Amino acid sequence: VKRVLVTGAAGFVGRFALPELVARGYQVFATDLRPPAHEEPGVAFRTADLLAPGEPAGLLAWARPTHLLHLAWYAAHGRFWNAPENLACVQASLALLRAFREADGQRVTVAGTCAEYHWSAGGTCREESTPLRPATLYGAAKDALRRVLQAYAASSGLAWAWGRLFMLYGPHEDPGRLVASVIGARLAGREVALSSGEQERDFLHVADVAGALVALLESPVEGAVNVGSGAATTIRQLVERICAIVPEGPAPRYGALPARPGDPPRLVADVGRLTGEVGFVPRYDLQRGLEETVTWWRKSRTTR
Amino acid sequence: VKRVLVTGAAGFVGRFALPELVARGYQVFATDLRPPAHEEPGVAFRTADLLAPGEPAGLLAWARPTHLLHLAWYAAHGRFWNAPENLACVQASLALLRAFREADGQRVTVAGTCAEYHWSAGGTCREESTPLRPATLYGAAKDALRRVLQAYAASSGLAWAWGRLFMLYGPHEDPGRLVASVIGARLAGREVALSSGEQERDFLHVADVAGALVALLESPVEGAVNVGSGAATTIRQLVERICAIVPEGPAPRYGALPARPGDPPRLVADVGRLTGEVGFVPRYDLQRGLEETVTWWRKSRTTR
Repeated sequence: VKRVLVTGAAGFVGRFALPELVARGYQVFATDLRPPAHEEPGVAFRTADLLAPGEPAGLLAWARPTHLLHLAWYAAHGRFWNAPENLACVQASLALLRAFREADGQRVTVAGTCAEYHWSAGGTCREESTPLRPATLYGAAKDALRRVLQAYAASSGLAWAWGRLFMLYGPHEDPGRLVASVIGARLAGREVALSSGEQERDFLHVADVAGALVALLESPVEGAVNVGSGAATTIRQLVERICAIVPEGPAPRYGALPARPGDPPRLVADVGRLTGEVGFVPRYDLQRGLEETVTWWRKSRTTR
Repeated sequence: VKRVLVTGAAGFVGRFALPELVARGYQVFATDLRPPAHEEPGVAFRTADLLAPGEPAGLLAWARPTHLLHLAWYAAHGRFWNAPENLACVQASLALLRAFREADGQRVTVAGTCAEYHWSAGGTCREESTPLRPATLYGAAKDALRRVLQAYAASSGLAWAWGRLFMLYGPHEDPGRLVASVIGARLAGREVALSSGEQERDFLHVADVAGALVALLESPVEGAVNVGSGAATTIRQLVERICAIVPEGPAPRYGALPARPGDPPRLVADVGRLTGEVGFVPRYDLQRGLEETVTWWRKSRTTR
């Protein structure tokens, strides 16, 4: 039987990964700093601080996993880009990966990021050809972890894959992040203030992001694989879609905010590996994903 | 007053770095897993395991350093190339670097390695242009640490330099390593069995390696700097020099051993940054360095 340990299991992606793994027949062992808001059927949960000495070993003795889906990372909105906590996350990840392999773990999938890429390279990000030159400490830390994992996997016989996440959105998103904050403002009748909105991004519903990572864990594909939709959407197009779903309220003000320094004009995934090699097919297109997300936020507002 | 903390201070390079630092007016605080063979005048020493939780913080509270010379790494001869201990060394280094900066440390120099470079790139290794594509876990771990350090230094205002060490030799070398083992065999009248010996390498006396790292710490130069002689010497030329210094005994047998898989044909430093920007001038040429090393081994044999 396949046994999987999921870190960051109560997080934005983690909570959507758990039912996917149960559905695929895994025995699921989940961990996070804090317990999840609700219990997921068929999932054993244990709180753990991966930074605490001996904690990875304790988790592995408990779960005895054949598979590892490592999602845990420091993610405080706005702060994570250059926070020193990124160093601690590399440390914790290395300790966990080694303990996993030494406990006879077979295959790992880790959540990477489009921030590993050189943002000024332009074009569409391809795993094999776009230069890796992170502009942030977050991107550098993920990039460095992947490099060590690649060499460690080769020397220790560990199977590994690395999902590079692009933009994601969906239920339970941090209210400060883009899609959640725009929906929140529209539902409250507040004005939406934005930068120019001309930046092109690649949005994928969080349930599909989780599904893609699980598909990657299940597949024999090795190395880095972009996790995105493959479609370029400008921030303005995204906001206009949300405004069409929540039509009441003042028009969004583009250009009201300055561009974030270093914000790349285009950040879009080539998804050839994800669709061709992994065989992943998303369930949501952007329109339906946004509609369901708005519905979730409406419910969430009324039940609070 | 400048206060420097030296890790790996009882190691091959560390023991030569201590007197250099004292001579340059630093207050020197030194640490290693084990105490050094002899006390270095003017140096405060404390044993520490950098991997133990809280140990970096304890060392920093003790030394309160403005400068850090980080040399400690797993270095068991033959084993270090692909040992999982490399992961622990990245962890320990990240913990130390963050603790150093958060205790108001100003400038750090770390020992890197020519194993960070793509060994099949050919030519002479240049910091700015030779691709970084390590063939070993050791090289990948050092490369990854440097990448995180670069981003962390930028975001936290830490001054940093990274010395990429090529081949080194000299007194106190591990008897299993190349120069020490050839000298040992010659002095014992044993045959020296080698691979083809056609590989080109760059050899620098360990005292000069330590001197270069200290010069780098003292300088305002940022980023990676090769630490080598800049001269290409084949293994055969090296062995012939040693045989000329210790003429008694059987002729070396070239080709008696197979080439190590992946062993690069050429691994030579461009030292433009080290000599031009750092202004470092070595004290030893290869001939005098080998002569003094042979003299040291002769004495070391008779006093044991």
